[in-house]
Amino acid sequence: MALKAEVLYDFTAEPGNNELSVRQGESVTVLDQTVGGGWIQAQNSSGQTGLVPEGYLQVGNRDGDSWSRPGALASTPTAGWDSHTQQAAVEDNDGEWDDDWDDQSEGGYHGDDQVDEEGGASGRPSVKISLNKFPFSKGPSPEVFLLAKPPANTRDLLPVYVGEVGPVWFYPSTPLDCLIADPKKESKLYGLKSFIEYQISPTTTNRPVNHRYKHFDWLYERLLEKFGSALPIPLLPDKQVTGRFQVDFIRMRMEQLQAWMTRMCRHPIVSQSDVFQLFLTYRDEKEWKSGKRKAEKDETVGPMMFSLIEPEAAELDAAEVEQRCELYSRFTKSMDDGVKELLNVGHSHWKRCTGPLPKEYNRIGRAFKNLSAVFISSKYPGEETLTDALTAAGQTYEEIAEIVAQQPQKDLHFLLETNGEYKGLLGCFPEIIAVHKAASEKVKEADRLVSAGRISNNDKKSMNHRLSCMSYSLQAEMNHFHSNRIYDYNRVMQLYLEQQVTFYQQIADKLRGALTQFTTL
Amino acid sequence: MALKAEVLYDFTAEPGNNELSVRQGESVTVLDQTVGGGWIQAQNSSGQTGLVPEGYLQVGNRDGDSWSRPGALASTPTAGWDSHTQQAAVEDNDGEWDDDWDDQSEGGYHGDDQVDEEGGASGRPSVKISLNKFPFSKGPSPEVFLLAKPPANTRDLLPVYVGEVGPVWFYPSTPLDCLIADPKKESKLYGLKSFIEYQISPTTTNRPVNHRYKHFDWLYERLLEKFGSALPIPLLPDKQVTGRFQVDFIRMRMEQLQAWMTRMCRHPIVSQSDVFQLFLTYRDEKEWKSGKRKAEKDETVGPMMFSLIEPEAAELDAAEVEQRCELYSRFTKSMDDGVKELLNVGHSHWKRCTGPLPKEYNRIGRAFKNLSAVFISSKYPGEETLTDALTAAGQTYEEIAEIVAQQPQKDLHFLLETNGEYKGLLGCFPEIIAVHKAASEKVKEADRLVSAGRISNNDKKSMNHRLSCMSYSLQAEMNHFHSNRIYDYNRVMQLYLEQQVTFYQQIADKLRGALTQFTTL
Repeated sequence: MALKAEVLYDFTAEPGNNELSVRQGESVTVLDQTVGGGWIQAQNSSGQTGLVPEGYLQVGNRDGDSWSRPGALASTPTAGWDSHTQQAAVEDNDGEWDDDWDDQSEGGYHGDDQVDEEGGASGRPSVKISLNKFPFSKGPSPEVFLLAKPPANTRDLLPVYVGEVGPVWFYPSTPLDCLIADPKKESKLYGLKSFIEYQISPTTTNRPVNHRYKHFDWLYERLLEKFGSALPIPLLPDKQVTGRFQVDFIRMRMEQLQAWMTRMCRHPIVSQSDVFQLFLTYRDEKEWKSGKRKAEKDETVGPMMFSLIEPEAAELDAAEVEQRCELYSRFTKSMDDGVKELLNVGHSHWKRCTGPLPKEYNRIGRAFKNLSAVFISSKYPGEETLTDALTAAGQTYEEIAEIVAQQPQKDLHFLLETNGEYKGLLGCFPEIIAVHKAASEKVKEADRLVSAGRISNNDKKSMNHRLSCMSYSLQAEMNHFHSNRIYDYNRVMQLYLEQQVTFYQQIADKLRGALTQFTTL
Repeated sequence: MALKAEVLYDFTAEPGNNELSVRQGESVTVLDQTVGGGWIQAQNSSGQTGLVPEGYLQVGNRDGDSWSRPGALASTPTAGWDSHTQQAAVEDNDGEWDDDWDDQSEGGYHGDDQVDEEGGASGRPSVKISLNKFPFSKGPSPEVFLLAKPPANTRDLLPVYVGEVGPVWFYPSTPLDCLIADPKKESKLYGLKSFIEYQISPTTTNRPVNHRYKHFDWLYERLLEKFGSALPIPLLPDKQVTGRFQVDFIRMRMEQLQAWMTRMCRHPIVSQSDVFQLFLTYRDEKEWKSGKRKAEKDETVGPMMFSLIEPEAAELDAAEVEQRCELYSRFTKSMDDGVKELLNVGHSHWKRCTGPLPKEYNRIGRAFKNLSAVFISSKYPGEETLTDALTAAGQTYEEIAEIVAQQPQKDLHFLLETNGEYKGLLGCFPEIIAVHKAASEKVKEADRLVSAGRISNNDKKSMNHRLSCMSYSLQAEMNHFHSNRIYDYNRVMQLYLEQQVTFYQQIADKLRGALTQFTTL
């Protein structure tokens, strides 16, 4: 069964570059999602094949499958996909979702319905920001928090300090990190379903825990639900169906999960949260299951999370806060544009470096080698030095072609991955800023509400205090973002430039070697 | 008036690469012939503009001009272009052709009719190989030589020795060369006609002589007439009309004339010939004019030139000669293919290096600089090191774009020029080999001709001897070609690789500089 994708935007192929022109709304068949550099190999309905930029496609369902779940698995107890009750029952029996889109069993692919599945799994109407990853739904208004009673349990309070740069989170003295390794193909249901299990070792315990992609996805949903109003929780690497058990894909997926986990570990609020700690340090199946149930019942989610914020300093000036929010909003928008521009040019460059450029170096190399072969055929005595050198020069250009083609994996790759991560983070800020802005607007109405007798003066005071907490949170988060940004871009630019230096130096050295083979005149 | 060109072959543009699709037979307007890399900027009848490969166009007449000579010059005494007599009369009056296609006067351009002009100038029905540069017309059959009486004057005999590699020409102990310099715009007819005059200093006399392009063309015609059956006399650089007085064009033209003259100087037969010596060493206008007249009256031209060959060794074995000819034929054909392949890939590479590649480096540079500007706008304290470094990295990629765009002028240029020269030389060999083959076939018939009583036994002996002289000449010329080829390719490959090493090293060094600006983590 072919994996289909819907075309999101018109794309005009550059001829001779193995690209495929597609029109918005068109449906194409995905042939290869592992070509790299932000490209997908696709086939249109006329049978033409070529590369299309990843971002232009919404990779989705399997042809003829209509998102339903056919075949071998249809006879399992989980067949009724529309019933949350039934789903919850399965959960109770098994402690796991029985269905598994992370699965490439004979029965085929079960599409996008982990939304149902999540709903069924948590089994309660929660204050979710979003049940679905896109688009980010608004969820409850921030007034839920502004006017609600704060939760009784204050064990989880989140202190905000005022540092040199303004409000900052409390950072643990030992930063957390983890290492994802050793991906193993596992199976269940007598081999009918198979999946990849990763081993994750946190630096705190050094004790590895095992998780499948869908556990990461569960964690993502919990973090989004709990912190999504206040902190950017970037998307996980796309779930992907084709080639899911290919070595390259597994390596790439693991690398992306590692990047995601490292970013979460680096966040002082996320990394210290119960649900994140559970994910990294559960001791046995029992602890995992009870922890899961507890996390799914957490009430301090969405804007209610702000009730945990405990700033050390006085309430913030509303006008100044508004100005800052404006600055954050402009900054994140500009950075989003800048990052996308870099991603665009990076993707083009990737394609040039892996397509036409090495092809041309190969042609140059072949032209030199051919000329050398012609010279040899002249039978003119004493030109071995020239023909040997000319062959070597040709060989060198063929080697350069190979180096050029491999280079993007060594430098552009990390530049694009990092910018891809930042694109994800930046995509979360409009929502975070909007939540803050909505609360701020509400508080501006407080006087009117008091006059109208709808809230008390105490309520108004309380609202002011809670908005101030939200502002502290936003500023602490922006400062966290900035310091991470500086670290990350410093690191990735160094890595990129180091690799680029090595690249050009290697070519210069190779050519110097080829040059020495010619007779000095 | 726009310069028109006829399209010789279909050419399909690669979109996004500033190319123009053209169809065979179509007429386009030439906008710029100085773009380099084998490309011409042209405009089609729909007004679309773009680059077309030089070789696909026959640049010709001026629009609306119909090859006639209108305007200011129509009133000069040379108005009747169809009359050789009148033309010859002008020659007598003036010692120069009064007409001048090397001229960009107000009157406009006098097209391709230097054929008439030459005919008029030399004023006699000569044994010309070709009056026209393309295609190379067969001229008289080699039997003219095989059966003709050799000329009485043996002062100009051309000895052939047998060296280690076989028959070789006699090389003068001091190799000749010349330096072309100091191109000056001169005018005549009270400024109505202007042209470029070059100063040519031979290494023998070190006394500069002045020549215009049309004198080079006259020399070319004489050399082709005299030696074209035996030696490759490559075409002069194309005459070119647009931009003829632009500094870049003059530099390029001079460089190409220099290459052509150097090659002619390096040829022991050509360089020692009276006409070549006249061109380089005439003392005054009088000597030049009388020398010209003498050269134009030279009878030992075309295949008759072989009568001057004086081999030191015995007659060559016909079968062995035939085998060698076959080898030469195959070799020159293969080398022609190899050279054209290299020219093709070189031209593509030129276009990539001057078009899309620097554009992409500029985009990368701009993306880094933009991101740096965004970072600065964050107002987050203490990130000057990062933003400065990021700006510098962006600047570096913009500089790399410039280096990349300039590079082809430094390396590909000479590689292409040398291969272009060889393409020209190799294009002469089929004719030279065909002349030899025709003679060889004729000699095979000798027995039959003797039996038929059409030639005597002495004639047959004489024919054998003369064919042997031709064979010596061909072999000496092939050996000359090979030794030059080895020298030239050794030189040009070294030059190319040296420049390529410098290029990559320069980029590596620049990037290393950019890297040091980042904070070490």
